[in-house]
Amino acid sequence: MSLIVQKFGGSSVADAASVKRVARRIVDTKLAGNEVVVVVSAMGDMTDELLDLANQVSSNPPAREMDMLLTSGERISMAVLAMAIADLGEDARSYTGSQAGLITDAAHGAARIIDVTPSRIQEALAAGAIPIVAGFQGVAFDTKDITTLGRGGSDTTAVALAAALKASVCEIYTDVDGIFSADPRIVPAARRVPFVTYEEMLELSAVGAKVLHLRCVEYARRFNVPIHVRSSFSQLDGTFVVSPEVIATAIAEGKAMEQPIISGVASDVNDAKITVVGVPDKPGEAAAIFRALADASINIDMIVQNISAAATGRTDVSFTCPVGTSKKALEALESKRSAIGFENLIIDDQVAKVSLVGAGMRSHPGVSADFFTALADADINVEMISTSEIRISVVTRVDDAKRAVQALHTAFGLDADGEAVVYGGSGR
Amino acid sequence: MSLIVQKFGGSSVADAASVKRVARRIVDTKLAGNEVVVVVSAMGDMTDELLDLANQVSSNPPAREMDMLLTSGERISMAVLAMAIADLGEDARSYTGSQAGLITDAAHGAARIIDVTPSRIQEALAAGAIPIVAGFQGVAFDTKDITTLGRGGSDTTAVALAAALKASVCEIYTDVDGIFSADPRIVPAARRVPFVTYEEMLELSAVGAKVLHLRCVEYARRFNVPIHVRSSFSQLDGTFVVSPEVIATAIAEGKAMEQPIISGVASDVNDAKITVVGVPDKPGEAAAIFRALADASINIDMIVQNISAAATGRTDVSFTCPVGTSKKALEALESKRSAIGFENLIIDDQVAKVSLVGAGMRSHPGVSADFFTALADADINVEMISTSEIRISVVTRVDDAKRAVQALHTAFGLDADGEAVVYGGSGR
Repeated sequence: MSLIVQKFGGSSVADAASVKRVARRIVDTKLAGNEVVVVVSAMGDMTDELLDLANQVSSNPPAREMDMLLTSGERISMAVLAMAIADLGEDARSYTGSQAGLITDAAHGAARIIDVTPSRIQEALAAGAIPIVAGFQGVAFDTKDITTLGRGGSDTTAVALAAALKASVCEIYTDVDGIFSADPRIVPAARRVPFVTYEEMLELSAVGAKVLHLRCVEYARRFNVPIHVRSSFSQLDGTFVVSPEVIATAIAEGKAMEQPIISGVASDVNDAKITVVGVPDKPGEAAAIFRALADASINIDMIVQNISAAATGRTDVSFTCPVGTSKKALEALESKRSAIGFENLIIDDQVAKVSLVGAGMRSHPGVSADFFTALADADINVEMISTSEIRISVVTRVDDAKRAVQALHTAFGLDADGEAVVYGGSGR
Repeated sequence: MSLIVQKFGGSSVADAASVKRVARRIVDTKLAGNEVVVVVSAMGDMTDELLDLANQVSSNPPAREMDMLLTSGERISMAVLAMAIADLGEDARSYTGSQAGLITDAAHGAARIIDVTPSRIQEALAAGAIPIVAGFQGVAFDTKDITTLGRGGSDTTAVALAAALKASVCEIYTDVDGIFSADPRIVPAARRVPFVTYEEMLELSAVGAKVLHLRCVEYARRFNVPIHVRSSFSQLDGTFVVSPEVIATAIAEGKAMEQPIISGVASDVNDAKITVVGVPDKPGEAAAIFRALADASINIDMIVQNISAAATGRTDVSFTCPVGTSKKALEALESKRSAIGFENLIIDDQVAKVSLVGAGMRSHPGVSADFFTALADADINVEMISTSEIRISVVTRVDDAKRAVQALHTAFGLDADGEAVVYGGSGR
């Protein structure tokens, strides 16, 4: 008998009809001979409505109370889902994050899981019941206050429970069929990717693929929890996010095709480019800039420093950061203008980041050349570049991003009617 | 420094504007030099909306899950209220029933409080904060599951906390100015009653006065917690529900007027009258009828047995029960028809119960005579009678109920422009 953790997001339980459909699916999994643990998010727009309410009564709601408020959303969805399952004749029991043993630190709004002690969940399973656990929430070890895990928190709850219960798989249900080689709204020929490694998924999540949140994938990689991202509207397999070893085994057993070098192309228009103009070209200046930004908790992505103009002894430093934090970044730098001695600040929010991700890059040195050739052929100007072992990202004009993604998708043979560039699983 | 427990019902926190108004009132109480503990119900129609949702997914929602669902309502209101208080510059911290130490039995939907261990509330008070506690809910001692206290549960939470914390008063805020001598919609001249005893309040609650629930008053009487029922829309005193000793002291100190013999007149149209026709007039027959009803958990109120018709050796037995349970009562009796040997069942839902309540009745034997004279003068037929030491109730036609209440209210001098029949506090 397999133990399966199934996580359903807010769109999967948006109304009574959806809840009943999800309940049917859960019961079918149970009746097929599995043990099932369910993690559920708040229904539909519930979280947004609660945020609205908070903002109506307070200009600066305390984080502890915000967590108390927001966690009511899952309390509703899990109880209603348990009722719908009971209506189908199975015993279902809902548990808050606290009751399910999700122990966190006390960082309200972005708490980290420090332990998972799911004894009540195990008792429910032993009694033949289906435990329904509230996603996104836990209880602080020190204060016993209710906490939330921040963005993507319900996925993290599911993976953490799957790890603690040694589940055979953590199924993340969503409204798409899995991970795609590109956003199908940009590339209609995008194809579903049957397998990706944790590493590739981390890179994809970091560069704009919205399906799984970074923390959830990190947690899964750390505890080697197989994730299956799939649609709650279909019975088809989606995308398995697993270790390279699992993929190699699947290929050896004929359960997976050979893997393409490139898993996918992603774009992200949520960054802004800030240029610090006329920075004195001497040691310590860049450090002063990035210390000021770090002190203001600004996450920096790419950085470029121009070659110094010998005549002036000054240089320009550009970096990207999330658009939402760009105002704070400007303020942080402005407050250090005289100390750093720069001349001006320029913000540019008409930029996009376009990224290519694939574990096969490691063993295929030609990928970079093909990447830049494809962009050049499409007449797309590259403003900044950053790379990891399995990713190349560039900053382009926002108006060029769509064409860049399409050009790369085609060039690397990812189009569904094309011929993907593949490599053998044995080399990974 | 006084410790005051303030309870706000759903209509007092129905929207953001109401929440802010209530927050202002709480902060004012704190700034006046008091310690304040707040108990709050779910916002407005929240509970009804959650019930609707449950009924959309299940024909028979499990009671455990219903409690999990319904308790999310207070979680929202208490967090939002804490935010609104924080916005006014005071430290407020919300607590679930479980966190506040409301320990109950495991009777989901109608749990009874078995212990109150409010250590976290005391810690919050010691830190100078205002604790906001979710009404209506607790945690089961045995199963650690979330429970609800049933109808009037938030009032009971407030009184239980006031008792455990030895509060000087438990203020129950509502949308009326207190307890009235009659429903002002029926008797426009009804007057606010400044003081009633626990005993009188129990009788008034039992016969249709909706302001306080029986269990809350019972709890207050047991632990001698002074209740102050008052309007959240005004600063005026409402009604104090206290012991006779407290009233006597208030009168002696000139803080209260002498008390009228009669506190109030109430009517209740939520009962049905069922008549069991042709019951064999022999020992044990009535017992068999009421055993059948008790086994079906039907609460019986008044009972009348007609004088037996000698010729037939049969008699009729009539009783009243809540309209909502009358169908179940008929079924319970029908299933015993042959065993009991009655001839027929008649149900009459066109009845009303009219009651007069007053602790002064004990020492004033003329009250009954005046009562029936007033009804006779108004040409109102009495179908059933029941009395307690401090209450007289009759069943009338539902169409006569309003006139009956008005006639009694006037006859006992309760009209605001009349002269109330009073007695001295020393005799109580």
